[in-house]
Formats: sequence, C-alpha cells, structure tokens
Amino acid sequence: MAVDEIRSILGNDAVSVDSHDLDEHGYSEWSTSNTDVRPVAIVRPNSTEEVSGIAKICTKYKVPMVPYGAGSSVEGNFSSPYSGVCLDLSGMNNIVAFHPEDMDVVVQAGVNWTNLNDEIKHSGLFLPLDPSPTALVGGMIATNCSGTNAMRYGTMKDYVVNLTVVLADGSIIKTRHRPRKTSAGYNLTGLFTGSEGTLGIITEATLKLAIIPESFSVAIATFSTVKGAADAAFKMMRRGVPLAALELMDDVQMKVINKSGGAGGRMWEERPTLFLKFSGSQKAVEDNIRLAQEITKSNGCHAFESANTEDQMESLWSARKQALWANLAVRPEGTQIWSTDVAVPLSRMAELIEISKERASKLGLYNSVLGHVGDGNFHQVVMYNPDVEKQRKAVSDCVDSMMVSALEMEGTVSGEHGIGLGKKHCLQKELGPATIGVMRALKETLDPHWLLNPGKVFDK
Amino acid sequence: MAVDEIRSILGNDAVSVDSHDLDEHGYSEWSTSNTDVRPVAIVRPNSTEEVSGIAKICTKYKVPMVPYGAGSSVEGNFSSPYSGVCLDLSGMNNIVAFHPEDMDVVVQAGVNWTNLNDEIKHSGLFLPLDPSPTALVGGMIATNCSGTNAMRYGTMKDYVVNLTVVLADGSIIKTRHRPRKTSAGYNLTGLFTGSEGTLGIITEATLKLAIIPESFSVAIATFSTVKGAADAAFKMMRRGVPLAALELMDDVQMKVINKSGGAGGRMWEERPTLFLKFSGSQKAVEDNIRLAQEITKSNGCHAFESANTEDQMESLWSARKQALWANLAVRPEGTQIWSTDVAVPLSRMAELIEISKERASKLGLYNSVLGHVGDGNFHQVVMYNPDVEKQRKAVSDCVDSMMVSALEMEGTVSGEHGIGLGKKHCLQKELGPATIGVMRALKETLDPHWLLNPGKVFDK
Repeated sequence: MAVDEIRSILGNDAVSVDSHDLDEHGYSEWSTSNTDVRPVAIVRPNSTEEVSGIAKICTKYKVPMVPYGAGSSVEGNFSSPYSGVCLDLSGMNNIVAFHPEDMDVVVQAGVNWTNLNDEIKHSGLFLPLDPSPTALVGGMIATNCSGTNAMRYGTMKDYVVNLTVVLADGSIIKTRHRPRKTSAGYNLTGLFTGSEGTLGIITEATLKLAIIPESFSVAIATFSTVKGAADAAFKMMRRGVPLAALELMDDVQMKVINKSGGAGGRMWEERPTLFLKFSGSQKAVEDNIRLAQEITKSNGCHAFESANTEDQMESLWSARKQALWANLAVRPEGTQIWSTDVAVPLSRMAELIEISKERASKLGLYNSVLGHVGDGNFHQVVMYNPDVEKQRKAVSDCVDSMMVSALEMEGTVSGEHGIGLGKKHCLQKELGPATIGVMRALKETLDPHWLLNPGKVFDK
Repeated sequence: MAVDEIRSILGNDAVSVDSHDLDEHGYSEWSTSNTDVRPVAIVRPNSTEEVSGIAKICTKYKVPMVPYGAGSSVEGNFSSPYSGVCLDLSGMNNIVAFHPEDMDVVVQAGVNWTNLNDEIKHSGLFLPLDPSPTALVGGMIATNCSGTNAMRYGTMKDYVVNLTVVLADGSIIKTRHRPRKTSAGYNLTGLFTGSEGTLGIITEATLKLAIIPESFSVAIATFSTVKGAADAAFKMMRRGVPLAALELMDDVQMKVINKSGGAGGRMWEERPTLFLKFSGSQKAVEDNIRLAQEITKSNGCHAFESANTEDQMESLWSARKQALWANLAVRPEGTQIWSTDVAVPLSRMAELIEISKERASKLGLYNSVLGHVGDGNFHQVVMYNPDVEKQRKAVSDCVDSMMVSALEMEGTVSGEHGIGLGKKHCLQKELGPATIGVMRALKETLDPHWLLNPGKVFDK
C-alpha cells in the first residue's frame, strides 16, 4: 500500500522491489552487524520534497524509513531489522551552490566527498574529511565520520553549518542560516549530526570548507613497542608540532602490508610505525619535519624516514592508505574481518591497544591495530570464520571486553563508526539509563512512532 | 515555601533575599535587555547534588530557576522576567581534575577561565577562548561564547568534551565519558551547549585544552575603507596565512581609542584597522608576518606595523583589548552603550558593516564597529540616552534593521552573545515557525513546566 502510494508520486522507475537491490541495501559485507530482514522496497527520491512526500506516506501507514547513502558504514547502520522502505539518496547528488568567497558549499545528501573535492579543487578549498572514498555527505553527517585528518581538522560535525532535514511526519526544517559562527538558539545542526537517521532524514547541508595547504609532506618513524610509538606521538603533540595527521600501525599491520605485496613498491620494517603528515608553507613543512625527527629520535625511534619528492610522499603514505585493502587481501579463505573502533583519553590508548592485542592473540586469530593517535581513537581488525560459531562468539566477546576496558578508561565505544545495530548494548554501558533516557525522550518527541531507522542507536 | 525548603537543605548562609543581592543578580548595566522583575532569592549551591536538591524543590513548587555565573552576558540572558530562584554557581569554582597527559580538565561551572589558565599555565596548555575576563565556564558553555581567538581555535562548543547537567526535575545526567572524539549516541553535549540554561543547569564540564604556542606576535594594518580592510583580510585567509586572530576596528572605534587617551601609550591612525595575531614557532611567526604584510600591501593597506618586542606586541594589541573600555570612557554623561552582535557569510560582512554604520549615523548617535572578521561576526556599539524614549526606540529599530539585513544575507542574529531576552523576536525571523517548533518540542520534553530560565531564547 505505502509502496504503491510512493510509486504514484515518484514514478515507477524510482521504486524498486528487485531482490538483488533489496539485498544490496539490506546487507553489507563490510559490516559486522547484519540482519536477515530486508526492506520491502528501495525508493530513490530526487529532492527534499520527494523525501517529504515519502515520509508522509510512511507515517500514514506506519512504515519504517531507513535512509541509505553509499552503504559504507560498518555497524549495520543502514540495515532494516524492522523492514520498511529504504530511501536511497545517492541520486540526490547535486552541488546546490558553491560559495568560494564564503568558504562554504551547499550540497544534497547524495554528493560523494571525493567528487566534491575534485569539483571545487580549482578554488583552493576542500572538505577536509577522509572516510571511505565511496562515502556520501548525508551518511558522513549521520555518523559524524572522521578519519586520518581529524586531528588537524576535526570531525564532520565541525564542518556542518546547517542542515535541511525531513522529519518523520514529512515536515521540512532548516536548522540554521549560513553564518560560519552562531550562538542563536539550540544547536539542532549538532543534534541531527551523528544521530544516524533516527531523528530525521538529512537531505541537504551547507558545509564549511578549509584551505588546501600550499605544501604537504610525509614521514614515518618506527619503534620497538606501541607504547614507545604512542609516547613519542604525544611528545610531538605537547610540543605543538603542527601535524596534519598522526597515525599508528602495529607490527602485525606492517607485516600484513608486506604480505600483501608491500605498498608503495617497497617492503617495510615490521615494527610499530607512526605515519606523520605535515602541511603548510614549504618552509614550515621542512621545519616541522626536522622537529618531529628530533623528538622521535630522542624518544626511542628506530628509523625516521621523510619524503623529498611527491612520489616518495605517495609511497610512504601508501602503506597507511592501503591498510584495509591489505587486510582484505591476506585474509585466509572463508574468513571475514571484524573491524571495531574505540576512543579513550589520549594517555590510555597505548595500554588499551596492548591489552586488546593480547586478548585477540589468545584466540589464535590474526589481528592488527591501526590508530588515529592524535584523537586517542583506534581500530582493531580481527580475522575470523563467521561460519564457525565458536569463533564468531569468541571475537564478539573479545570486542565486548575491549569496549568494557575502554569504558573503564573513561572512553567511548565508538570514535567514528557510530552505534548502528552492533553497539547498542555497549552504548547502554557507556551512558547509563538516565542519559539514554534523555536521548530516548528526544527520539520520542521527534519520531513518536519510531519509524526513522528503528532499531539503531538504542531500542524503544 | 520553596525558599524555606531550600534553606533547610543548603543552610541559611547559602540563601539570600537581600535586595541589593537581588538587584545585582536581576539587572545588568552591560545588557541592553533588562526587566523590572527580580528573583525572590539568590541561592548559592556548592555541588551538583545541591543543585539537584534545589531543582527538585523548585519543580515541586513550580518555581522558575535561573542559573547565574558572572553576570557578564549582554542579552538579558540571566534576567528573571518570571522571578523565581536565581542559582548563583560562582561558588562552584573547583578544578575537579586536571589531566595534562590527556590534554583536558574537569571543572565545576563556577570556574573563571582566566583563573583556570593561570592555574594550568605551567603545563603548556590553555583553554583558548577569550570572552569577558570575568566569565565563568558554565555561562561560557550556556551561551556558546567565543571572542578574538575563535577564528583559529573555534568556539566554546569545540572545547566541551562532556557535561554534567541537572535537569528540571532534579535528575543528574552526564552527557558523555572523556574521549576527545566520539560518534556514540546523540550529541547531548552539543544540545546543552548554547541552550542558555533553558534545558538544564550545567554544573560540571570536561574541557579540551590546546597547546600554548611557542611564540606570538602582533601586527596592525590600516585601510581607507572597511571594505578594503575586509578584502585584504579574506585574501590572507584564502592564501592560508595561519592567523591566530583577525580583528577589525573601524575609523570611529580608532578615534574612540585616541579620545580615551590612546591605548598602549600612543595615538593611532583613525582609519579602519586590521589587528592580526600570529602564533607558532618563532620562525613560522616571522614568515607569516612577512606574508601578511605582502598581501595587505598589495591590497590597499596604508600602513603595516608589526611588533618586534613583547612590549610592542602588548602596545599594538592594547587598542583592540581596550576597545570596550574606551567606549565606556568616552560616552557622554547619561548615555548607555547598545552593543549588538551579528554574523553573516564572510563575503557579506563589509557590506553589512557599511549599511549599519550609515543607518546608525543617520540617528546622529555615536556608533562604532569592531569585528571578528575571520568569522564574519561583528559588533556595533551605539551610544544613546536610555531616558530619552525616542532615542531608545530609534536605536532599537536600528538594531532590528541590522538583524533583518543580516538575515537577508543568510546570516544569524547572534554570533556569540546568544538570544536571551533581547533577541527572541529576531530568532523567530531567523529560523521560522517549523524550526522553532522543533526547539520548543525539545524544551517541552526536557522541561515540561518551563521552569528553567523561562522567557529566554523563545516563549512558550
């Protein structure tokens, strides 16, 4: 019924019930949390007004609505445990207005961030986030994504000036006008950002842009232990070395890179390694590399290597860039990757990494760590066979222990992937009933029938 | 009744009904919006639990609660139009825990930011906001304050890691743990920040800290017109010159400085002037000053002057620092200052300043402008006699026109002062009924009896 009515306003071509399409929008091999349930239809709106029309129909028939972007999230954020209609917003991919003179851009939710950056490159401006290259702006906002640039540039929430949001009942709101700074009224922009489509459907956004630095460079530094690497990293931060990125990969992850063929046309030392990115004027970059070398060297660094040419730069950074693909390439047949994400106060990160590595290694399973050290945020990747129930359970328990340890260290169960389906029980532990109670009250106010992406973040 | 019950839990000394005390907490000469109504009592809690106890009593008797910090806000944010109990949190001034290794600090709401920065200076860390020197952390968060450092460091919301909040019914929540980065659950921290005490009473916060730069310097550049100054400013921004602050004062404001005796032991050119702050390594600072000089010179700058010594630095920055005091010093007897705050997309700022100056000058009243150019945010100061109703009305109309023009330029009616009592009608124009409707629904969910700072931001 609802689907027929949606067809009548969007046209036949915009509504699909093809089983392959339903599977693709209901299941993700990237995600550790999936459900067997599928949406009843995929609808492809082209405008905020069409999304509003769909929401009105879904509310009328009390049908769940699940917004979908690129499908690159990893916690089951776009799965359809209560079925319903999946709104694929990837067709809403227009750059609505580019204001280089105001250093902002207005985009529809389906715009891909790498395409956006290509389009506006000539202006010397860019959106300085770097999640999955496939990610679309709407999903990036809904999960408050980040990546390796977060240390220098912040996370997605720091770039959202305003949002156009379709509420459950189909009404359309714009959270703000277009000033870069404001203290007028409640920060609805911030409330919808990171709410994973459970409070409203983001259809359009104004995004701040940053200046593309004049010059970049890259260096790596190897250490005997993760703790040694982390200590040197924090020393650089405290000295105020202006780093553009500060990433860590453990010995296993470096082994994986070599095993997969060695990124950047070379083989790598199999030690915990810091990947440093520098940006600014050419002279500032040179100075900062020297300072970083000095600090790492006097803090237990084995080898420090910096790039002199653009090729060397690409080569050095390629190991970090290809980390996920390398993991996929070397995983034994039949295994899957459980990739999880946690963030703790800076000083506790090395300790939690060591504990987590030890626990995962006890399972006899291949596991590696890569971290956004500057944010106290890291990912552990464990390879397991999902068909062996004992293995699946063991990995799941292992990840849960990591979450508990992170919480004991006053950390969070998700630094950048969101809660989705997979971490609801962890969020309860993190925030407790009173705080979750406030979130639930807000949810019930904005979506009284729980139709917006139900089953995510927390349950009714 | 409520006051007696509060006295019974807090003790006699913590509850005052002294009329001088009531006046001080109910009226501000800094503020353009006041009310004749006064609170019935000032209560001085010492802990989150005491605030919770007060809230329970106030909810039981349906008595309004108005949180009060330093009283430095300027839009009537802490006035008591519905009377009730004023909670003076200035006694809650403990630094609860300082974590230099995590680059954060846990403070009670009554901590003064300059005291905090003095206390932690030895660590090389600081809280990089700079509102009124008297401001307390709780109020700074409640109004999402900023100041001259915002361009480089962001606004208050960018420094709040978590909040402890007492809700209307007295329940206590903590919005998050203590990681610097998170995407776990709704951003309640962001919702309470900037909500002006209307959703809950902030009693404690964890704040991110930034690194004190190795070296600072300061320069000024004078121009023939505001537009010329703004154009040069944006050129510097687009070239990626790493400025720590980028401030503008118009010719009148420079005249005021001279008239009040000339800040920094000198007299100043009476032209639109950019005040530039640089920070980083000593070499980077020198390079950036050279680059700034080059850009301003080729963009219509009359005179560029940079500081070579710490004394010169203080002298050059003193004009910016003393702007407000200079205005107070030169105002004719019997006049008051109407200071307002607006922010627009960067490219529209110069135009709005010119329009606003022209309008205010037509009134025959003394008016000046100072702006945080890097954020498209500026203040206009108009001197008027509040006892001459015609003058008061004319200034009020003039400010309203400025708001309307800002909105036509897709700006906001408050860049950093909040809405309070004074700008409620402007916020309606800015956001419209649908968006205000969502804010109101959130308010009603968290404070169903409208007891928390009622009459602020928007009406019931």
